[in-house]
Amino acid sequence: MPAVITLTTDFGLEDPFVGIMKGVILNVCPAARLIDITHQIEPQNILQAAWVLKAAHTYFPKNSVHLVVVDPGVGSERRPIAVKTRSAFFVAPDNGVLTPVLDKSAAIYELTKQKYFLKDISSTFHGRDVFAPAAAWIAKGTALSKMGSKITDPQTLTLPQPELKKNGITGEIIYSDRFGNLTTNIPADLVHSFSQRVDNMTIQVGKTRIKGLVSSYSQGKPGELGCLINSWGNLEIFCRESNAAKKLKVAAGKKIIVKF
Amino acid sequence: MPAVITLTTDFGLEDPFVGIMKGVILNVCPAARLIDITHQIEPQNILQAAWVLKAAHTYFPKNSVHLVVVDPGVGSERRPIAVKTRSAFFVAPDNGVLTPVLDKSAAIYELTKQKYFLKDISSTFHGRDVFAPAAAWIAKGTALSKMGSKITDPQTLTLPQPELKKNGITGEIIYSDRFGNLTTNIPADLVHSFSQRVDNMTIQVGKTRIKGLVSSYSQGKPGELGCLINSWGNLEIFCRESNAAKKLKVAAGKKIIVKF
Amino acid sequence: MPAVITLTTDFGLEDPFVGIMKGVILNVCPAARLIDITHQIEPQNILQAAWVLKAAHTYFPKNSVHLVVVDPGVGSERRPIAVKTRSAFFVAPDNGVLTPVLDKSAAIYELTKQKYFLKDISSTFHGRDVFAPAAAWIAKGTALSKMGSKITDPQTLTLPQPELKKNGITGEIIYSDRFGNLTTNIPADLVHSFSQRVDNMTIQVGKTRIKGLVSSYSQGKPGELGCLINSWGNLEIFCRESNAAKKLKVAAGKKIIVKF
Repeated sequence: MPAVITLTTDFGLEDPFVGIMKGVILNVCPAARLIDITHQIEPQNILQAAWVLKAAHTYFPKNSVHLVVVDPGVGSERRPIAVKTRSAFFVAPDNGVLTPVLDKSAAIYELTKQKYFLKDISSTFHGRDVFAPAAAWIAKGTALSKMGSKITDPQTLTLPQPELKKNGITGEIIYSDRFGNLTTNIPADLVHSFSQRVDNMTIQVGKTRIKGLVSSYSQGKPGELGCLINSWGNLEIFCRESNAAKKLKVAAGKKIIVKF
Repeated sequence: MPAVITLTTDFGLEDPFVGIMKGVILNVCPAARLIDITHQIEPQNILQAAWVLKAAHTYFPKNSVHLVVVDPGVGSERRPIAVKTRSAFFVAPDNGVLTPVLDKSAAIYELTKQKYFLKDISSTFHGRDVFAPAAAWIAKGTALSKMGSKITDPQTLTLPQPELKKNGITGEIIYSDRFGNLTTNIPADLVHSFSQRVDNMTIQVGKTRIKGLVSSYSQGKPGELGCLINSWGNLEIFCRESNAAKKLKVAAGKKIIVKF
Repeated sequence: MPAVITLTTDFGLEDPFVGIMKGVILNVCPAARLIDITHQIEPQNILQAAWVLKAAHTYFPKNSVHLVVVDPGVGSERRPIAVKTRSAFFVAPDNGVLTPVLDKSAAIYELTKQKYFLKDISSTFHGRDVFAPAAAWIAKGTALSKMGSKITDPQTLTLPQPELKKNGITGEIIYSDRFGNLTTNIPADLVHSFSQRVDNMTIQVGKTRIKGLVSSYSQGKPGELGCLINSWGNLEIFCRESNAAKKLKVAAGKKIIVKF
């Protein structure tokens, strides 16, 4: 079973950057299976990339190598790191983008050994020069301990957490998708801890109140806002046959209040 | 020769949805060759996806598995289906999107066996939970008869057909591509049945009349509308070095009249 | 090690064109590794495709097949060609797009043998009917000499060259990327031939003057224009945390003057 390498970047698809990274990988590990998660992370939005990685990585085969290049600090002193967890490998700049996968099993290495990079390292494209070749060497079976030194002080992001209140939950929108569906940071089990009162549930976003919880998009009314538990296992605000993000004029970061 | 799985969706490439589906597939069938047809079907435009599938599927190796997820009814009672024809396999929601490939050879199955799905099935992302794993099991060689029960009443779309008139043909635009080239539903042989009069041919779109048929874009005049037989084998309206869709302000569904 | 085929086109990703080309390739060469460089070349911008190919192709494994379809002359008399250099193969229309790779080692062939094309050749989509199958046969190991006749008069583009002046260099912007970073045609060694005076360097674009050269984006000031040597090894104008192309309202083709 050939190694899988996934790619998540903010490089977009207009330019040859992603293709070039894949060329570099194939030079080192010709058998690697290359899967794009997305290249349309908002430029330099580390938090968005972190959420996307969290949502996606568990669906890949064990020991896949997840390469994440959202790298506002390219060319500065920020470290390149690689991480091994019980289930997968990760390669990224040390800027917090791996926060959601740093569980107790995580062994974290600063990548320092030049022999696993390209010979010439530019100051603007470490995706090509550092991260892609490192990911390829890992996919080929190179031990992280050969590629650098263990560290215990990775940069981490503060991921916004939902808060349980007396009559409900406060949370925030963490992701808006192509359809304008708004994923919140409130997991299903938190909602269901109030389950006897789900019919009376109200979700407030700004001045808008949405009532009740449905179980699928098809139960929503066309053009109206609704809430359900989505494929991330989180509370989501949607608008059937329309776009909730546009209708509410909100984006990731917006606070919401759930009352029961 | 490893199995080919093609993917056609309206998921776009901004979000991790397509990558996640591929991860699910590789878990079941690590050797599958994954080819994107497009992920930019207009949201929930089943008819557009049907035309794209029709245009694309015949160019793939025999017994490729074509996975199509344009699924406005996700989470409702609509059935997931798989189809085997003389030349290929298809997996999709039962909403008519497979209409163009349902020839006489087609054996159609409702996918019912949970063991070929993910364990937890969300109400919003059957592409991941139902269709991707089913396609992967088919690519791995699982018989459709093991995966569900035969059905004979699939949903079908009414695909607009051209009509032969005394002095010409009425038809409609079925697809507008990136360049603004407008594919109609009028096949070459219908045009050529009037071939002695092709020079006198007039294509009317709204109030605009286009004269004659050229044999390549390079025979068109820059900035002017022209007609030719395109790579689908159908009559197409184009505008050399410009965009016919914008110039005519039309889209799929617009009627046209061809006179000889 | 399976053959690598890269794809560079102006087809975009909305339509099924790229997927169809890949289907055609897999019919001929099922083991080919297919890597997208980009499909978002500006429609019919041959020069842009040439620069992208130049930047990308050296990062791929030796003997990769680089398929480039930016083809305003499709259906006209322009020749399909294939090229073998010391390091790689190239397949493209003969319209100059391969100019940057035509070094002294290049053997150039007009593709004439129908058996390496699809049976039916449309007048609008030679990417599918001619170039994709030809690339696949090359990836499979077919000698170019079997596929057509050697030619010595390929079309070439005049690639804009920087000019050395007494107190500096004149050049032009050749590429604007997703981030609005502006690559010029001035290579690092030309800049460094003035190295003792790099601190006094001024880059003039229209009426704007940018001072000095930094070594990474992180050394720029947020919202201000800066210059560095980028990952192409060329002088680049950037705007940290913003978009230099938008700020300067310029695009590829714009002249610049570097003074020391």
